Amino acid sequence: MLGLTGSPLSAADINSLKEQYRRPLEIPFPDSAPYSPQMATLGKMLFFDPRLSGNKNINCVSCHNPSFGYEVPVPTAVGSANTHLGRQAPTVLNAAWVAPMFWDGRAETLEEQAAGPITNPEEMDGKFETIVEVLDEIPGYNKWFRSVFPNEGITRDTVLTAIATYERTVVSGWAPFDRWVEGEEGAISASAKRGFELFNDKANCAPCHSGWNFTDNKFHDIGTPTEDIGRGLYEEDNPKAQFAFKTPGLRNLTYRAPFTHNGSIPDLETMIAHYNAGGIERPSRSEHVRPLDLSEQEVEDLKNFLVSLTAERTETPMPTLPN
Amino acid sequence: MLGLTGSPLSAADINSLKEQYRRPLEIPFPDSAPYSPQMATLGKMLFFDPRLSGNKNINCVSCHNPSFGYEVPVPTAVGSANTHLGRQAPTVLNAAWVAPMFWDGRAETLEEQAAGPITNPEEMDGKFETIVEVLDEIPGYNKWFRSVFPNEGITRDTVLTAIATYERTVVSGWAPFDRWVEGEEGAISASAKRGFELFNDKANCAPCHSGWNFTDNKFHDIGTPTEDIGRGLYEEDNPKAQFAFKTPGLRNLTYRAPFTHNGSIPDLETMIAHYNAGGIERPSRSEHVRPLDLSEQEVEDLKNFLVSLTAERTETPMPTLPN
Repeated sequence: MLGLTGSPLSAADINSLKEQYRRPLEIPFPDSAPYSPQMATLGKMLFFDPRLSGNKNINCVSCHNPSFGYEVPVPTAVGSANTHLGRQAPTVLNAAWVAPMFWDGRAETLEEQAAGPITNPEEMDGKFETIVEVLDEIPGYNKWFRSVFPNEGITRDTVLTAIATYERTVVSGWAPFDRWVEGEEGAISASAKRGFELFNDKANCAPCHSGWNFTDNKFHDIGTPTEDIGRGLYEEDNPKAQFAFKTPGLRNLTYRAPFTHNGSIPDLETMIAHYNAGGIERPSRSEHVRPLDLSEQEVEDLKNFLVSLTAERTETPMPTLPN
Repeated sequence: MLGLTGSPLSAADINSLKEQYRRPLEIPFPDSAPYSPQMATLGKMLFFDPRLSGNKNINCVSCHNPSFGYEVPVPTAVGSANTHLGRQAPTVLNAAWVAPMFWDGRAETLEEQAAGPITNPEEMDGKFETIVEVLDEIPGYNKWFRSVFPNEGITRDTVLTAIATYERTVVSGWAPFDRWVEGEEGAISASAKRGFELFNDKANCAPCHSGWNFTDNKFHDIGTPTEDIGRGLYEEDNPKAQFAFKTPGLRNLTYRAPFTHNGSIPDLETMIAHYNAGGIERPSRSEHVRPLDLSEQEVEDLKNFLVSLTAERTETPMPTLPN
């Protein structure tokens, strides 16, 4: 364990830390939905298809937009009723690694998660009975489902399994940070390297933003002003669950502003300033969040480190869809 | 000129016809907006950016979706007010060649066209005063505009010029038909070749669907039931302009259903059946539209020809956007 000493870490410390952030070699697919390229392709088609929504005008991409790191650049997304939703749209990036799903973790699996926004009247406003009929009438889909799900065909479950399988393939690309972890010393700047040390030491980010995807997938109150009790809805008796939200991963962050569960923090600078100040003191606030006393240079270093987590190539090809 | 003889065309006739459908070698850019890769890239970013809309939730892609041949698979698109618009969203494919714009040709240029949906309260509901402010606050855009438009920066006109420039680069890819035109005999089936003859002869499609993009960019009443007088709004005294709409190009048609100005024709089969029957007899109906007496085989041939106009590779990469 590293203490908050403020003194530089040794080369051995740094190397040991790097090991904790190495990219995985495989995507974990559940036994219930093993990977096949066909299923992922079908899932991608559904993810991009507005015909899943009640008015046939909104798709998963509307709120999980690859142009913005699979989020949207607004505090809270706008759904089918033209109203702002209660929380920010979380990214789909690295979805295979981040269960439980939603800011409050109320869904155990991606399959269960996907059913939520598709059918929520304020989001996509779809009904699976109708979705199955609509897809069944499109010859291209009919053929795809018969091929990928020969026993089941088009059902609520096969639609969700295909979408979840595609989502598991959405993995953030190689970032300068990854190349540095793998030994390319010049991949990130000296400032970003100092930022990495701060991240793990004085700035105390790593206890929650841990591992290669920079999240522990647990719930913490980071002390931002909000009336939303988040995880507290499901853990009434846990004082630490009040105002607590799931730790978001930090990959491709530069595309994903604004930040936090309600999008109240507009950019990286404000995010770091929030942590530096320590946020609102209340019983639920995470023990890891407290005033940090970072200097201007340290703030800059931390920011440069976070920017180094954005992948260099991120364009997503849109599929053509059966019609 | 070829007569409606029903007899097979000679090889010389076919070769002469093919010449009329050869792909152009260059995209025509106007002197007012010469092509640069930077301007087209910026325009693509804007085309994909929902922050141009009033609620920051709708982009040009919402109705001109590359997954559906730059249209949407509904009779009429749904805009920001969650209401169906009056007409179908026309494709952006080959936009450089299809002025005047809109189904009724009311805009002379792509620049003028683009301003319409962006600001229409029922479509994107944007206001250029706000759009300019929003873009100006995004450092990435600020930099892009200063580089591409060093004298003007971010203005209504530069936003529209960039979008129009991108749209001019949206060109339908090589289709089997194109390879056949260029001499690859096996690129399309014998049935599709017969369909090509029918298209130019007995079925009488070519007088309006002329040239490599299969449109004369003029206005015709094809005899579908509608109360929308279309071009008639702008040519009150021209009896042939009543119920007349601009001839749509036929490239990548298999992605673009439903068809006609109000999307009332759900698929290619119904489209061909409509022309075969001749549609509603009324003074405005085009002289080229009349009952065709096509056999079942001829209908099939015509369909196979139309399908051969769809490009083989059509995936569009989504840009990442400054945030």
